[in-house]
Amino acid sequence: MSSMTFDAPSSDKSLLEEGLTFTPKFDAHGLVTAVVTDARDGELLMVAHMNAEAIALTLQTGIGHYYSRSRAKIWKKGESSGNLQSVKEIRVDCDQDAIWLKVEVAGHDATCHTGRRSCFYRSATLEDGRPALVIADDHRHFDPSDIYGG
Amino acid sequence: MSSMTFDAPSSDKSLLEEGLTFTPKFDAHGLVTAVVTDARDGELLMVAHMNAEAIALTLQTGIGHYYSRSRAKIWKKGESSGNLQSVKEIRVDCDQDAIWLKVEVAGHDATCHTGRRSCFYRSATLEDGRPALVIADDHRHFDPSDIYGG
Repeated sequence: MSSMTFDAPSSDKSLLEEGLTFTPKFDAHGLVTAVVTDARDGELLMVAHMNAEAIALTLQTGIGHYYSRSRAKIWKKGESSGNLQSVKEIRVDCDQDAIWLKVEVAGHDATCHTGRRSCFYRSATLEDGRPALVIADDHRHFDPSDIYGG
Repeated sequence: MSSMTFDAPSSDKSLLEEGLTFTPKFDAHGLVTAVVTDARDGELLMVAHMNAEAIALTLQTGIGHYYSRSRAKIWKKGESSGNLQSVKEIRVDCDQDAIWLKVEVAGHDATCHTGRRSCFYRSATLEDGRPALVIADDHRHFDPSDIYGG
């Protein structure tokens, strides 16, 4: 199924930036950055990585697949939690080293393993000139200990 | 001005994820991933990198600063083009290795060096089972050769 191959990026910058050939610019570890937003309202849900197989599986199945660096394997997002991602659109940036996925999230409508809708649930600010975090969204859509076994 | 220091990330996962201490998890090159969206509508504008100094300058000035890997120096986004970023909110993700900036773009309302509003102006699809790109937004807000000297 995922026997898709990608050509190497062109050394011609204008072909890379203006062409219609999809040639992901993988880093030394064979990865590109994946930015995942909610197709409904543009909320940033997560940032992850994709290798060639994850991109191929996502294109072929319409379900978000990534590469887990910690587990060193393909990661079908939501396989444990049920929060699968239905991919509505895939975009690629000018130099083709980052991919944007607009998704609809199934299950609990939550993407973060902490149970929140987005991984980006804290804001960074200055307090008396010192960096600090403030909770921006503390609603948990599921209890992580129920889903992942504590 | 940017003499701000960040504590090292806690080895306690719950402190890192639930605490209110801003401890960016820099990679081996001293960088975190920065995702930049338009505060108006959530459009993904660019993906870049920040080092500690870029985060400090952004917090202190409210203007988006990044670290340019190609030029190996701090990059005040829009300094050449006038497309400066006024940062409305900064968010950080669960493990603090990615930062989300919601910005308003000045100047031409364009972020990509190709003159387009967003760097993500092409969609990736399958055509007869093969990956291909399709132009999603071809409107150029400025002529790059006017701005960067061709």
